[in-house]
Amino acid sequence: MPEQQTTSLDETLGFEAYEREGEEVARGRMKVADAIRQPFGIVHGGAMASLAESVTSRATYQAVGPDNIALGMSNETKFLRPVSDGHIEAVARVRHRGRTTWIWDVELSDAEGRLCALSRMTIAVRPMPSGGPGGG
Amino acid sequence: MPEQQTTSLDETLGFEAYEREGEEVARGRMKVADAIRQPFGIVHGGAMASLAESVTSRATYQAVGPDNIALGMSNETKFLRPVSDGHIEAVARVRHRGRTTWIWDVELSDAEGRLCALSRMTIAVRPMPSGGPGGG
Amino acid sequence: MPEQQTTSLDETLGFEAYEREGEEVARGRMKVADAIRQPFGIVHGGAMASLAESVTSRATYQAVGPDNIALGMSNETKFLRPVSDGHIEAVARVRHRGRTTWIWDVELSDAEGRLCALSRMTIAVRPMPSGGPGGG
Amino acid sequence: MPEQQTTSLDETLGFEAYEREGEEVARGRMKVADAIRQPFGIVHGGAMASLAESVTSRATYQAVGPDNIALGMSNETKFLRPVSDGHIEAVARVRHRGRTTWIWDVELSDAEGRLCALSRMTIAVRPMPSGGPGGG
Repeated sequence: MPEQQTTSLDETLGFEAYEREGEEVARGRMKVADAIRQPFGIVHGGAMASLAESVTSRATYQAVGPDNIALGMSNETKFLRPVSDGHIEAVARVRHRGRTTWIWDVELSDAEGRLCALSRMTIAVRPMPSGGPGGG
Repeated sequence: MPEQQTTSLDETLGFEAYEREGEEVARGRMKVADAIRQPFGIVHGGAMASLAESVTSRATYQAVGPDNIALGMSNETKFLRPVSDGHIEAVARVRHRGRTTWIWDVELSDAEGRLCALSRMTIAVRPMPSGGPGGG
Repeated sequence: MPEQQTTSLDETLGFEAYEREGEEVARGRMKVADAIRQPFGIVHGGAMASLAESVTSRATYQAVGPDNIALGMSNETKFLRPVSDGHIEAVARVRHRGRTTWIWDVELSDAEGRLCALSRMTIAVRPMPSGGPGGG
Repeated sequence: MPEQQTTSLDETLGFEAYEREGEEVARGRMKVADAIRQPFGIVHGGAMASLAESVTSRATYQAVGPDNIALGMSNETKFLRPVSDGHIEAVARVRHRGRTTWIWDVELSDAEGRLCALSRMTIAVRPMPSGGPGGG
């Protein structure tokens, strides 16, 4: 992917340990810290939605790029259990690999392995604009 | 809301200009910067989902607290148009004020006023745990 | 649209009063009857989801056909208030008219005008298969 | 469940073969027929959403009733592949059994076993109204 930036949301929120197992499974993690908390002291739902989106758009791009780009089209995240400490682990499994969209189901769990959120991500696949991603 | 933290996701991502118009409308904004971009240089969808969630959970809490807490239950965000510069403005309108859930529709627009994302947030309303939010 | 059928889901469930106001608004209605109830005697959520989908896919097709087809891609319906009698009125407003997807917000109300469900429909727009819709 | 009705949406749409495997899995099926088709001759998305909702609300009620009722709160269905013939089989797996909501993931497949839709259902669990379900 492009190198022109010094930071990105992934770094801002401390995403780490990204890995991909073939085309069908991808993983990522974030440590619980104030930077991702909301005012009540628990992890902000948006941080969990962000982690799900980063893991799945990156995994889709690795499969369809560089001739295509992969862009989030829909992020549907349900929050089941608040998390205050430790880390959050995301495991994404692909459910649909269409010509124009990929769909992933993501489970987010806490350090004890308890399910804390479920995300269903739709990633749009589009031909890379001729001028690169910034040209579109 | 509690004061014990030095930062929160809202500050990490640079959310600003929160305001509430009665119980039914709330607004917030974020400046486009590398800290909220994804690797292609556009605003990360998770940042938009986070802004929608911050504005609506805060506005719900202002209406139902401090006897109740307001927690994100479902965040469904659709991305319509990539944003590379300027800022993003969120306008949330309440659609349902139930005893246990509030539902908000959020429009996210760029600096030219073009719609770039739509979010439907479900916020759970629960009695404040007796030991405070950390006690639940 | 094709004429080869004697019935369709719209007739099975008693959808009526479809009308379209330009490209941006469309309406439809169903009478509450046992045929659309669930076992507790209230209107089945699936009937409301179906009404939202019929109104929006039909209105999209009227705008993009006959060179394109319009197919439901995602139906997200939230149920706010049970309905036992009278009728249900759907009002759909378009929120996004893209090249490959249209997004509609649908409000479903009871005979007293109270909001009972909200639906967000994504309709895929695709070129008509050369052999007609059955050829795809 | 109550016996006062002669028909219901399940019968109208021809749902059959409902079965439950413990608290965690439930199944149902519908035959493809004109009554559940849309005008292009394929199965109406609303019929698939309805099947998912029937299977999961029934399975939830079997677990939490008769002291509680189980009502659809959110039906999010994605359509992956059009179906023209045969039958559709739904398999629902519970993902969350909370005090006030259950969440199910439903896979809908055609007669060849190909995945044609994915549904995520949120079912609200509420105390049975004292006058029965019609009393609430």
